[in-house]
Amino acid sequence: MFTLHPTIAQDTIEIARWSVCRVLLMKDANYPWLILVPAREGLGGLHELSEDDQPLVMHEICCASRALNGLYIPERINVAALGNMVPQLHIHVIARFKEDPAWPGPVWGVVPRLDYTAEVLSDTSTKLEAALKGVIS
Amino acid sequence: MFTLHPTIAQDTIEIARWSVCRVLLMKDANYPWLILVPAREGLGGLHELSEDDQPLVMHEICCASRALNGLYIPERINVAALGNMVPQLHIHVIARFKEDPAWPGPVWGVVPRLDYTAEVLSDTSTKLEAALKGVIS
Repeated sequence: MFTLHPTIAQDTIEIARWSVCRVLLMKDANYPWLILVPAREGLGGLHELSEDDQPLVMHEICCASRALNGLYIPERINVAALGNMVPQLHIHVIARFKEDPAWPGPVWGVVPRLDYTAEVLSDTSTKLEAALKGVIS
Repeated sequence: MFTLHPTIAQDTIEIARWSVCRVLLMKDANYPWLILVPAREGLGGLHELSEDDQPLVMHEICCASRALNGLYIPERINVAALGNMVPQLHIHVIARFKEDPAWPGPVWGVVPRLDYTAEVLSDTSTKLEAALKGVIS
């Protein structure tokens, strides 16, 4: 039994389910921002993944990074597992641009979340779903 | 030929060389803070690691996390590959505490770096070297 943390559930929409991770889109239009959550109960840190899951999660992080890269041609991809606020293990994969509101710092806590319009959210999730399908193996 | 980025070289001391990564101690006494740098030329993001190196780097991240956990019993381990400032791929592995100066936010840019005294730096690197030897396989 795996349950997504309610804060993560509230802040994201699901785009894909991969071997280990749920792939979620963060509802913040400031940045193309995916969150990967290993669908395993009770994990807090990457080092708590099983030996079998570790390489799978790394593969999924790299696939998500490639999908964002292909779709957005960003300056950098930021990958982070922090969890100071939300204890359930989740991995941020964020496309960063020199023009984004937090560059060159990290994104957390810099500017208020920017809501997607319903249309852009739908369009973005459709595009991401296709891009994610194109990179996963 | 692999060369450490000069900024990383200046900000850290080397504690170990693992299969893929140099394991470095960040010279900031505010946080127990390791930096893992895959000793491969020309990498910017995790997704640029070879298929062979990806699981090895994940394993080394998890080992470094376990070493910090065992030594410091922190609240969380933060893992991040950002690279907005220094383009060479490097992975932060940081022990975080509710009492540290950036909690619960990320550490970057919050408080000025705090120098270690020579004695504490030597003691910390000795302890970390032993802890890292104890977790790597």
